Amino acid sequence: MELWVTENQTPNLSLSIRSTETLFRKRSDYQNILIVSTPQYGKILLLDNTIQTTEKDEFIYHEMIAHVALYSHPTPSHVLVIGGGDGGTVREVLKHQSVSLVELAEIDREVVEASKKYFPYLSSGFSDHRCKIIIADGTEYIKKMEGSYDIVIVDYTDPVGPASNLFSKNFYTAIHTSLNTDGIFVSQTESPFLHIDFIIKTHTTLSTLFPFVHVYIAPIPTYPSGLWSFTIASKKYDPSSPLRTDAIETKYYLPEIHKASFILPRFLKDALRTSKAI
Amino acid sequence: MELWVTENQTPNLSLSIRSTETLFRKRSDYQNILIVSTPQYGKILLLDNTIQTTEKDEFIYHEMIAHVALYSHPTPSHVLVIGGGDGGTVREVLKHQSVSLVELAEIDREVVEASKKYFPYLSSGFSDHRCKIIIADGTEYIKKMEGSYDIVIVDYTDPVGPASNLFSKNFYTAIHTSLNTDGIFVSQTESPFLHIDFIIKTHTTLSTLFPFVHVYIAPIPTYPSGLWSFTIASKKYDPSSPLRTDAIETKYYLPEIHKASFILPRFLKDALRTSKAI
Repeated sequence: MELWVTENQTPNLSLSIRSTETLFRKRSDYQNILIVSTPQYGKILLLDNTIQTTEKDEFIYHEMIAHVALYSHPTPSHVLVIGGGDGGTVREVLKHQSVSLVELAEIDREVVEASKKYFPYLSSGFSDHRCKIIIADGTEYIKKMEGSYDIVIVDYTDPVGPASNLFSKNFYTAIHTSLNTDGIFVSQTESPFLHIDFIIKTHTTLSTLFPFVHVYIAPIPTYPSGLWSFTIASKKYDPSSPLRTDAIETKYYLPEIHKASFILPRFLKDALRTSKAI
Repeated sequence: MELWVTENQTPNLSLSIRSTETLFRKRSDYQNILIVSTPQYGKILLLDNTIQTTEKDEFIYHEMIAHVALYSHPTPSHVLVIGGGDGGTVREVLKHQSVSLVELAEIDREVVEASKKYFPYLSSGFSDHRCKIIIADGTEYIKKMEGSYDIVIVDYTDPVGPASNLFSKNFYTAIHTSLNTDGIFVSQTESPFLHIDFIIKTHTTLSTLFPFVHVYIAPIPTYPSGLWSFTIASKKYDPSSPLRTDAIETKYYLPEIHKASFILPRFLKDALRTSKAI
């Protein structure tokens, strides 16, 4: 008998990965958590049957959600990550010497605990003295924080379902308020091939709040369509090229990759331009 | 009952697409040809159960295999496409005003005929007076051509199986001979995530023949891992930025995309550099 884990990426599209073992399966207060071993992508974390992260390709997502924002700021010190309970984003943020505190606001304690147990490399930043884990709803937590952060990162894979209010104008306004006067916000914003309307809507909403709003892209094999977008909004610094030259260890990110990731295919560039003109 | 078409992208990974209708199914002298209708990606052409092209995402592959090479040449006139029986590459090549002749050397007449019938947009270039279709083995055909071409494009999706000799040193040498003194060669070279050894091998082999050899990348949702590589080799012009500014109609390609596609992720850049040092 063969074991395969299948994600229905859309009603008409699914990705299946051969699995050798189910390591963890639990219904938490918020979602179904599943961790499997696979020959193709190593251990995989799924939440509500959606692939969140895999050992083999997680470096791209986590490097690109963290380093583009952090390299766009001259001295990022105080960082907030909302979601991201697996720890990958925190691990990348901590590579920057100027960071003195990274708070992780994750609603589901079970995800944090499971990552500590099954994904030691992903969760390696949790033991850093600069990391503070807060088990809380990020949309509530951020309301208390005024002018606290240099960088806010929304690291949640699904804009529908339990996290849908992580993509609302009220939430973005609270993020804007929580940022310092030269703060930067970044969020994953789904696939340019499958969710272009969502990308445009996010871009339009953020453009009413921030002077610099850009979409950038990176390939992520285990996410639907294999191409993913991030939207970055900045109060003072143009985030489309790195501001610092100090080097860190990476597998995907490079200063020239930072710049190239903002060069968008014509169909996406045109869609964003057209929507702004309206 | 639901109909799904599934490609086993690796022994441990498969992509499934819901299908509404099987339009064409035939065993030709060379391969199994299958054409299905799908809500996700429109009509899809599969050869030996491998997705070759889909109506919805074909523009990326065909624009990127054609325009990077053609825009790197000041006056591309005579072009050879080996494989590519669906016609998408020919269609893109013909967008360049300087092209006076594009020859298509496709071994399987059935693919050409099926594309004419089921993919009118893909095969639209076939009726252009500048297009000449040659039903022949490209590896044999090219041996007769000395200094004939400005551009040679190898458009075949699978380096194993019936087309494996399309990726050998003998074949590359014949291509080099078939090119004008300022000629350019480009080939698809699989996924950086799944076939990095193949990319390195191709790059190393071509580097013994051409002064300029570069790998560039583009996202293709229906190909394994969603990220694809192309390797370009040039006798005179550096292909990493466009040489001309005349505009054509595209959905993916832009002059800045041309340049950005040569900016490689660190893991790929390092792998290519390391292999060259040996």
